[in-house]
Amino acid sequence: VLQIQRGRIIDRIRAVYERFGFDPLETPGIERTSVLTGGNADLDKLLYRSFPARGGRWPRREPDQSVSLRFDLTVPLARVVAASPELPKPFKRYQVGNVWRGEKPQLGRFREFLQFDADIVGSSSTLADAEMIQIMDTVMRELGFTAFTIRVNDRKVLSALAVKGGFDDPPERVNDVIRVLDKIDGIGREAVLEELGRPVDPKTGGAGLDGAQVELIGRYLAIDGEPEDVVGALEALLGDVPIGREGVDELRAIASHLAAAGVDRATWRIDPTIARGLDYYTGPVWETVLDDAREIGSVYSGGRYDGLVGRFMTNAVVPCTGTSVGVDRLFAGMELLGMLESPAGTVSQVLVFNLSREMSADYLALAADLRAANVRTAIYMGDDTTFKAQLAYAARLGVPVAVIYGPDERGRGTVQVKDMRAREQVEVPLGECVERVVRVLSKEIESGT
Amino acid sequence: VLQIQRGRIIDRIRAVYERFGFDPLETPGIERTSVLTGGNADLDKLLYRSFPARGGRWPRREPDQSVSLRFDLTVPLARVVAASPELPKPFKRYQVGNVWRGEKPQLGRFREFLQFDADIVGSSSTLADAEMIQIMDTVMRELGFTAFTIRVNDRKVLSALAVKGGFDDPPERVNDVIRVLDKIDGIGREAVLEELGRPVDPKTGGAGLDGAQVELIGRYLAIDGEPEDVVGALEALLGDVPIGREGVDELRAIASHLAAAGVDRATWRIDPTIARGLDYYTGPVWETVLDDAREIGSVYSGGRYDGLVGRFMTNAVVPCTGTSVGVDRLFAGMELLGMLESPAGTVSQVLVFNLSREMSADYLALAADLRAANVRTAIYMGDDTTFKAQLAYAARLGVPVAVIYGPDERGRGTVQVKDMRAREQVEVPLGECVERVVRVLSKEIESGT
Repeated sequence: VLQIQRGRIIDRIRAVYERFGFDPLETPGIERTSVLTGGNADLDKLLYRSFPARGGRWPRREPDQSVSLRFDLTVPLARVVAASPELPKPFKRYQVGNVWRGEKPQLGRFREFLQFDADIVGSSSTLADAEMIQIMDTVMRELGFTAFTIRVNDRKVLSALAVKGGFDDPPERVNDVIRVLDKIDGIGREAVLEELGRPVDPKTGGAGLDGAQVELIGRYLAIDGEPEDVVGALEALLGDVPIGREGVDELRAIASHLAAAGVDRATWRIDPTIARGLDYYTGPVWETVLDDAREIGSVYSGGRYDGLVGRFMTNAVVPCTGTSVGVDRLFAGMELLGMLESPAGTVSQVLVFNLSREMSADYLALAADLRAANVRTAIYMGDDTTFKAQLAYAARLGVPVAVIYGPDERGRGTVQVKDMRAREQVEVPLGECVERVVRVLSKEIESGT
Repeated sequence: VLQIQRGRIIDRIRAVYERFGFDPLETPGIERTSVLTGGNADLDKLLYRSFPARGGRWPRREPDQSVSLRFDLTVPLARVVAASPELPKPFKRYQVGNVWRGEKPQLGRFREFLQFDADIVGSSSTLADAEMIQIMDTVMRELGFTAFTIRVNDRKVLSALAVKGGFDDPPERVNDVIRVLDKIDGIGREAVLEELGRPVDPKTGGAGLDGAQVELIGRYLAIDGEPEDVVGALEALLGDVPIGREGVDELRAIASHLAAAGVDRATWRIDPTIARGLDYYTGPVWETVLDDAREIGSVYSGGRYDGLVGRFMTNAVVPCTGTSVGVDRLFAGMELLGMLESPAGTVSQVLVFNLSREMSADYLALAADLRAANVRTAIYMGDDTTFKAQLAYAARLGVPVAVIYGPDERGRGTVQVKDMRAREQVEVPLGECVERVVRVLSKEIESGT
């Protein structure tokens, strides 16, 4: 039942992506482990690493020879882009597919889950980043969400903070800080500042910053307000660092594009606390929370990753930006918010009762006529040939119309068409069966069911 | 480019499945290895066995604790059915998803490939088996295939052959014979008979039958003709074995149902040589070959598997039947047969040229208007702001309409709408842009492109 609605959600997301001119491009579910991790030990822990069983001609247990299940759709895309110089650029692609992460399952977090991504490959324009935010806004609205917030930041602003605070060298220190900042939704601002000041320790998560550094980050994290205010405050704090100026300019351009595109200001904000955990982001980043179900985390997130294609291709920079909706997490949110009410139990519109083994040919012909009129039709195929059992089955399945044709009806040259919801049954000549069914179904559609 | 067509194929298959009243039901890509193999060592060799990397809380290398990627969509379905007693039965489900097999890739054979299955769970009726064949016929026709053959047999007939020939004990002997029969398309009838007579040997594949046994199978394999003739000949040869009578009756009922359902007799035949390799089949089995591309193998196959759910649930028999199209293999067939001619390069219908950085807001507004009219629209987001570069890009992408709005047009309050295929360009007032684009696109549709 829920899967029918899940399928409809996927169809709607796809329609939005196509309306924005994105084309499908699929990549495999398995990749060389080294392609996926890029040497990142944290990612390594997340992966389902896979070997062929005995007898295979497959790479064996040597780590660099192993294959793993993808943990996202972005890294495999970058590999394919690097291997496909013939792709016209900019290339706008979408892909829906499962990804796997060996994490502990919890609310909104699954080991295998469906992502639906949109990416623009080969564009460094802030128009591309703004379009990602516009797409997220459009998808969320068309799925019926009214209370959600898209939080936008820029990795360059974070880099400028690191430069200004003097924790930009070695580069791993920035990542230590970002890892701590990433916890802000879970543990809050004060705990983050406290943790930043603790000695570096993989277990407790300290970042080893001194008092002045922590104080700078505290001022940074306090920045809040309307986009122009936040941009102004960031400019005042970090505008004297060249990379900070770049980041501020990008955020300002995105705000301007979103206004021109007609995106409602209420649904997005610049939030300096957003970092996004993945290390491949280089510019604007974003995530989306459901205002009334924040506990399930971000349902739609992404950012710019200008360096990722370069990991697989020397001497070339292919700037990219993309966004990814976690379909299962979004769906969990819709369930939690009661947005999935009164679902249809089946895609079938008609169940043709099967009341006599001798009449199989009649049922097959009836079903063929209905399907020829594009009516989704099933014939009852269970063992119980009684009317009562099949009526109970039709009700359980939730099919809107039952077509009943037994030996009596055959004798009279008629058929019974039963509206299962209105509980009305009408006997019509056999030749008018399809017409009658279509009329009952259009009544169903009018009444919104 | 090809992926757009692949997506359309999937949409069409889904439309057929839904028209026959099948509902979506998805199962995970990874399962416990023991669920997938059921102890079958041959399957074990096929599997991608997967372990979490270090640090995971995941099952480790003990074989029975490991997880693997599914090799089909049928075994996981059976597990889910066993775990879901609340499912109304009969239950008609469809699923599209990737499966993985550690085989050597070759024409039409991939390590990761997409299957699209339809199954009827909880029906022992031959109506269900016949419906599978009808669905295959419908899908193939709606995808544009005209020359294909659905070959149908019944495992019970093969079992009767084993009883009659005295090679039914132990049961593994039957599987040895079926494994050899399965090679008939590759090596031919004579070679199969020769191999059946060789001593049992996992390497050479002999089945260790004596002369009389080989002679019986020779007579069996020679049976050919119209469905009623084949059924008659099978009845004459094996009708005195109870399980053979069952199989013959099933094939006769299926033939009768297919005639009543209006399935063209030219597209299917009873072929006693068909065995299907998988060991879970118990009754009717089928496969589909492209008459003009037989070398890629069966593109659409399945059968009845009454015992598979019982593997996961004691004290219950849930009879099932199903069929599975190998989308990638089918697609390879369509390519081979030249059925994928003149593909559209993009789903985009309009490219809005981006000729001036100062006019971003105008382009965003133009695109928003077009999308509001359901026109799939992209804005050029590359670096090159020259008209020439963007025209070349539009042509390369294959987008049918270009909308050109530069400083000159802005001065005149107009926009250029260019029909890329007819190479016609018309300047219209800005406010008539959408109307003009829609008119050009509807012309495109009329001319069938």
